[in-house]
Amino acid sequence: MRILVTNDDGIHSPGLRLLYQFALELGEVDVVAPESPKSATGLGITLHKPLRMYETDICGFKVVATSGTPSDTVYLATLGLEKKYDLVLSGVNLGDNTSLQVIFSSGTLGAAFQAALLGIPAIAYSAHIEQWDEVLNDREALRIMSAVVKATAEFVARRGMPTGVDVISVNFPRRLRRGVAARLVKAAKLRYAQQVERRTDPRGVSYFWLYGKDLEPERDTDVYVVLKEENIAVTALTLNLNVLDAERAADLRSLKELVDYVNQSI
Amino acid sequence: MRILVTNDDGIHSPGLRLLYQFALELGEVDVVAPESPKSATGLGITLHKPLRMYETDICGFKVVATSGTPSDTVYLATLGLEKKYDLVLSGVNLGDNTSLQVIFSSGTLGAAFQAALLGIPAIAYSAHIEQWDEVLNDREALRIMSAVVKATAEFVARRGMPTGVDVISVNFPRRLRRGVAARLVKAAKLRYAQQVERRTDPRGVSYFWLYGKDLEPERDTDVYVVLKEENIAVTALTLNLNVLDAERAADLRSLKELVDYVNQSI
Repeated sequence: MRILVTNDDGIHSPGLRLLYQFALELGEVDVVAPESPKSATGLGITLHKPLRMYETDICGFKVVATSGTPSDTVYLATLGLEKKYDLVLSGVNLGDNTSLQVIFSSGTLGAAFQAALLGIPAIAYSAHIEQWDEVLNDREALRIMSAVVKATAEFVARRGMPTGVDVISVNFPRRLRRGVAARLVKAAKLRYAQQVERRTDPRGVSYFWLYGKDLEPERDTDVYVVLKEENIAVTALTLNLNVLDAERAADLRSLKELVDYVNQSI
Repeated sequence: MRILVTNDDGIHSPGLRLLYQFALELGEVDVVAPESPKSATGLGITLHKPLRMYETDICGFKVVATSGTPSDTVYLATLGLEKKYDLVLSGVNLGDNTSLQVIFSSGTLGAAFQAALLGIPAIAYSAHIEQWDEVLNDREALRIMSAVVKATAEFVARRGMPTGVDVISVNFPRRLRRGVAARLVKAAKLRYAQQVERRTDPRGVSYFWLYGKDLEPERDTDVYVVLKEENIAVTALTLNLNVLDAERAADLRSLKELVDYVNQSI
């Protein structure tokens, strides 16, 4: 099996190296990742400027660095290097990627979605931690993380993606202790109440910071499982945003009336 | 009605000014948009650096410019300026935003999705044109575009978003002639076969361009309606990527087996 490992925290992230080490037990592994952190770039791609891609060695860890976003990186790795991959693993991200709000803006998930658009099964891994030392100095946490990465990747490689699923996202809680369990849950809609703080620079001109305040999570969502239960959330995601394909409570009559209204106006 | 008009092509795009002019007939309109083009930034947000926002005047057209992405801009406009909007209109984008592949990376759609996450109804408008002169010099095209923007915005403002719909995306064909019709269609999965071209700079170092080659569109998709039929595609999109919420052909048994397999491995 040929595996592409990538991320959005960049080539120097310990999470990338961990994912590479876990994946090595499953097959041939290439690491191609952004040269610098590209958090919250979503599925952004670079069309208006050229991209660089070069081999580099980080204390014995051979990687290919790109100047692009995580999405660019998936294209450069597959099409630019003309390699075929059976599986794309993205992460392990520093910080969880729970809730649709976060998923849509996440570079870790962005890389996985681009792989899915190219027809390659993709799994994203993220950890609700603030520093990698929390995991790197904890043998039990490393054992569990390794087991979960290998089990998910092995399952998908052997059985294929479950029908209807484009990307699987795995979120680890802060502490990975004996007794922790993986739970199949849906992504919450929101994780944060978005905030904007206005400040004034030394020259008297305003500037703004975007940040988020934690919302109280709803039960049986990825946010709840990771933050409250401290279990591992496994979330199955589709690329299909089409309301017309979803048999859920879509108001088709109202949509048809909208289009009739438009046609009458032309 | 209070309307926020934004885009991803930046404050100097004629499409932004057009959308403002169309919206003016519907209510009070603020224009807040990126100071420079931010195409293909998807739902990327800026968390690690501060953002600027300032009023400016482009030949009598008063806008608020931001240094952020389209998603940042929606947050800055709503939370930074502490304004409440009933509707967010994004566009009109130079170039169509058809297919899920393009929608996920589109800044025009990104702004609309962020508005939807904030609970504000949002409509994205895009035109399959290469230059704005194609529309600006064509009175019939302007009349039709104006009518369609007003009809969609008015319908959503008066009736609310149809149940199950988070964002409505409208794509105009290259030519807007008498007889053109709006059609309710789903987004195709792909619009382009992605390509990467390797070149060598004058110093002998490789660089890469990402681009896409048109794929033959499938019938009854947004790509087909806009490119082949030359009609107007109206697409209803949901933010809900959860396979577990979709009653479509998801293989739940296989997903449960995956999680069992993971739990056995821990």
